[in-house]
Amino acid sequence: MGVTFEEFRAGLEEREQRRKLLSSNGRPFFVLISQQFSRSEIESLCDTATAIRRLDRQLDGRDFLRNVLRGQRIMNLFAQPSTRTAESFVAAADKLGAISRIVSDLRTSSFSKGESVEDSVRTLSSFFDAIVTRHSDDEFAMRAAWALSQTGRPIPVISAGSGKSQHVTQSLLDIYTLRYSFSQRGGVDGKNVVIIGDIARNRAARSLAYLLTRFEKPRIFFVSPAAFAPDDELLSYLRRHEVENTTRSALGPLLREVGHDIDAIYVTRLQQEWDKGGGIPDSGERGSSEEFVMEPSYRKLVRPDCVLMHPLPRINELPESWEDHPGFVVWRQVRNGMWIRAALFAAVNGADAEIRHRALRLGLLE
Amino acid sequence: MGVTFEEFRAGLEEREQRRKLLSSNGRPFFVLISQQFSRSEIESLCDTATAIRRLDRQLDGRDFLRNVLRGQRIMNLFAQPSTRTAESFVAAADKLGAISRIVSDLRTSSFSKGESVEDSVRTLSSFFDAIVTRHSDDEFAMRAAWALSQTGRPIPVISAGSGKSQHVTQSLLDIYTLRYSFSQRGGVDGKNVVIIGDIARNRAARSLAYLLTRFEKPRIFFVSPAAFAPDDELLSYLRRHEVENTTRSALGPLLREVGHDIDAIYVTRLQQEWDKGGGIPDSGERGSSEEFVMEPSYRKLVRPDCVLMHPLPRINELPESWEDHPGFVVWRQVRNGMWIRAALFAAVNGADAEIRHRALRLGLLE
Amino acid sequence: MGVTFEEFRAGLEEREQRRKLLSSNGRPFFVLISQQFSRSEIESLCDTATAIRRLDRQLDGRDFLRNVLRGQRIMNLFAQPSTRTAESFVAAADKLGAISRIVSDLRTSSFSKGESVEDSVRTLSSFFDAIVTRHSDDEFAMRAAWALSQTGRPIPVISAGSGKSQHVTQSLLDIYTLRYSFSQRGGVDGKNVVIIGDIARNRAARSLAYLLTRFEKPRIFFVSPAAFAPDDELLSYLRRHEVENTTRSALGPLLREVGHDIDAIYVTRLQQEWDKGGGIPDSGERGSSEEFVMEPSYRKLVRPDCVLMHPLPRINELPESWEDHPGFVVWRQVRNGMWIRAALFAAVNGADAEIRHRALRLGLLE
Repeated sequence: MGVTFEEFRAGLEEREQRRKLLSSNGRPFFVLISQQFSRSEIESLCDTATAIRRLDRQLDGRDFLRNVLRGQRIMNLFAQPSTRTAESFVAAADKLGAISRIVSDLRTSSFSKGESVEDSVRTLSSFFDAIVTRHSDDEFAMRAAWALSQTGRPIPVISAGSGKSQHVTQSLLDIYTLRYSFSQRGGVDGKNVVIIGDIARNRAARSLAYLLTRFEKPRIFFVSPAAFAPDDELLSYLRRHEVENTTRSALGPLLREVGHDIDAIYVTRLQQEWDKGGGIPDSGERGSSEEFVMEPSYRKLVRPDCVLMHPLPRINELPESWEDHPGFVVWRQVRNGMWIRAALFAAVNGADAEIRHRALRLGLLE
Repeated sequence: MGVTFEEFRAGLEEREQRRKLLSSNGRPFFVLISQQFSRSEIESLCDTATAIRRLDRQLDGRDFLRNVLRGQRIMNLFAQPSTRTAESFVAAADKLGAISRIVSDLRTSSFSKGESVEDSVRTLSSFFDAIVTRHSDDEFAMRAAWALSQTGRPIPVISAGSGKSQHVTQSLLDIYTLRYSFSQRGGVDGKNVVIIGDIARNRAARSLAYLLTRFEKPRIFFVSPAAFAPDDELLSYLRRHEVENTTRSALGPLLREVGHDIDAIYVTRLQQEWDKGGGIPDSGERGSSEEFVMEPSYRKLVRPDCVLMHPLPRINELPESWEDHPGFVVWRQVRNGMWIRAALFAAVNGADAEIRHRALRLGLLE
Repeated sequence: MGVTFEEFRAGLEEREQRRKLLSSNGRPFFVLISQQFSRSEIESLCDTATAIRRLDRQLDGRDFLRNVLRGQRIMNLFAQPSTRTAESFVAAADKLGAISRIVSDLRTSSFSKGESVEDSVRTLSSFFDAIVTRHSDDEFAMRAAWALSQTGRPIPVISAGSGKSQHVTQSLLDIYTLRYSFSQRGGVDGKNVVIIGDIARNRAARSLAYLLTRFEKPRIFFVSPAAFAPDDELLSYLRRHEVENTTRSALGPLLREVGHDIDAIYVTRLQQEWDKGGGIPDSGERGSSEEFVMEPSYRKLVRPDCVLMHPLPRINELPESWEDHPGFVVWRQVRNGMWIRAALFAAVNGADAEIRHRALRLGLLE
């Protein structure tokens, strides 16, 4: 209380301070950046997601789930349009019986009448019990969380993607998918992961890299155009957490060199939609797109159990012919997004333990 | 599995093949064209609709209905805007306790990022248990059904109107309304039906004509501008199914000739919104609109029990003064659309029999 | 039945006639203007709102509430965009278990195909049990109510703001907030209320003034630019109901004169969005905006218990520094909007008495 936005933002840089600002009663309250999650919180979220996924297969389990957040109302404040992410959150809320509303066109609200963002968010928040928000401004979710923390009726805020910086729920679903894929191979610890794309601008890729630091001795191979290589902030974070990483400028040579050691390849598209602004190198400078495409001919360079992921939408960088590769889990990622978001809603409301215990009792979770 | 889209489309031409492609466990799975329904399936759907309509009048019945599809999630993917049709589907789903989402502005989804339609539909379908879709492309619903049939998680697809070709749920509600209106007069068999409008381009009119072939010896009188007379595909279908029909160029003379033999008149509006494209005859060539308008003066040319229908919206082709004609059932059509769509949701989920049996037990259905 | 729109509109001018046209079975059916509510109806609505607000705090109470309108379907037909008002109605409906739909973009419906407003409203109403409507046309809600009253399936219509004339639910929430704030000071009767803004064009301000006439001997001080002073219709209504009032052209002098006698100040913004049309005086003619702003320096001119209200959104007319003034209840107004709208839904459905009795039995209401 009585904290300025600048103090709030600065506080997020430091672990203990961050925990104080973003948590409440030992559970996440504001979900803004991947760095806020500890290893045990990640494991716990993944277990909750698995519990929900398995309970949802049974009629009884579904009824149980739909009572967990019954009557809760969640606002999806999506200033930056994204039907798929919004629908994933809505489906997740439905699974637990919460009611969702999507508020997407801020022009139809009073924003256009000269109202401050703080007033708008606070007014709308009055009708809800939690906010999910997506915005092209890197700091919108942070600002909404701060503004609500200053009121007498703060409610949880979950970022669904902020500008170019972070996409925390995407990284959680990606880690959940990796963990699932490696369940027979010792989990995520010690795995070699390739991340392809405009790392500096792709929030899914960056958030995943941040989250990998929570595991033991992963190795990351970034493959990106020189102009969009990992930024210093990310690299120094990886260094501080002793995560070995290198950056390459082309996929083919890397796979020819170490393809059989790779455990997972995370493909993202080159971010053409940001390129409409000025001052950004054109595709000529970025080199031939073939250097960042999973060519069908690479099939023999990777192991059959090499996990293949993509946050979607894809254009041509992960051709359809890969769909019958045994490690292709892109469609599982999409479903997992729903389960992990449901787990997050449960955690934020302190209802995750009861879900896991129910699943344990029914033998659905070890 | 392993069927190309071209094979899928070609398969729909042949009755047995069609049944295999569109049904699952003896019930409709993909609902794409009127021709896919047999007489007994139509009767069964109509009975289900009546059961739902009558159960909905009772508090107990409403509670029963709202449990039938509880927790089911339905996506209404409406690329072509249509508030009324979308709301009819949403209301229908609500009656059975299913949750609906409308995804209407595809520009806000990733379609605009260069993603394939197959990827978009498959991604969104991950969050749902059924899809209702409307699109200006004649083959969109077909393509969505095919794409999903190739995945490991196919879900039902119901077309809510495809381009100019078909509007299968509209024709089902129209047949349901005719059957209701003729319940004291031996049903739809052997009835004389006038269909007025741009038959070649009006999907409601065409779908109704296709569905009438499932009844015994109906006679159809088309009244349409020469440029938009019934197309060869429709006419040859009617011929193959031995449905007597003629096409007239004006309504007045027809009614003066055989008005008292007419059992139902289905009025549609001249389809001005298609006329913005080039190469289509202008209204001058289509003749005077009076030839396709139910003039108030025609009142004495038809029987009081002559059924008067319109798929709405209407402009001036069915003047308000007809509203107190005993056979005017346009507003009943609108409500029936909700009941028949609920019946379709039930059928697609294999839940229709339990609804009919409940209604039978309570004496609400004979 | 058989009443023309002109007769319907004229009937609303006279108390007895109005009651007949707008009520059904002794409860409000069409909610169009503040004048339609009697003192006892207002008190009853406020009690219901309080009952709902308190029941909602208990798990049991919430379950009880969510059964009150279970299965009811409410259409929010918002031709004039207003996310916050729409979301307030949706939240209110959710509290009682009703299902809401927002239909906001009338261009995507058939309005654009040349259909009459009456047909559009009637068609959409077929899928719903009540309509909430907001429109820039002063008479839209009235016309919708009239059109539905002429059909065989009339449903309740609640105006959520009509043009510049009235905003009846806003005035109900404002009165509810005043009543709450004055609960230890003898209620609204005899209070001195300042209303600041473009009175002639601000529907919230006007509706509040109309509703204040239902209380005993309130005194109203309007503060408005000369060009937007209270209109003759409002002034003569106040005179007929013997409500003492004066109109001032600046706030500062008024507060210096009688600030310590003021019980409540209702601030509204100068209505810039109407000024895009022609023929309206520019801001120069309206005088300096400082004359209509609650300057922080006025703090010493008002009592600490002076109630401070604003219908939001605000720009600069009620600076943030007022938020710690003890009488500042702007955020309570927002929440109260949800409670009073839920009370209204209950009243319109005849379910308000059961809510109040439940609350009485549990000791939540005196």
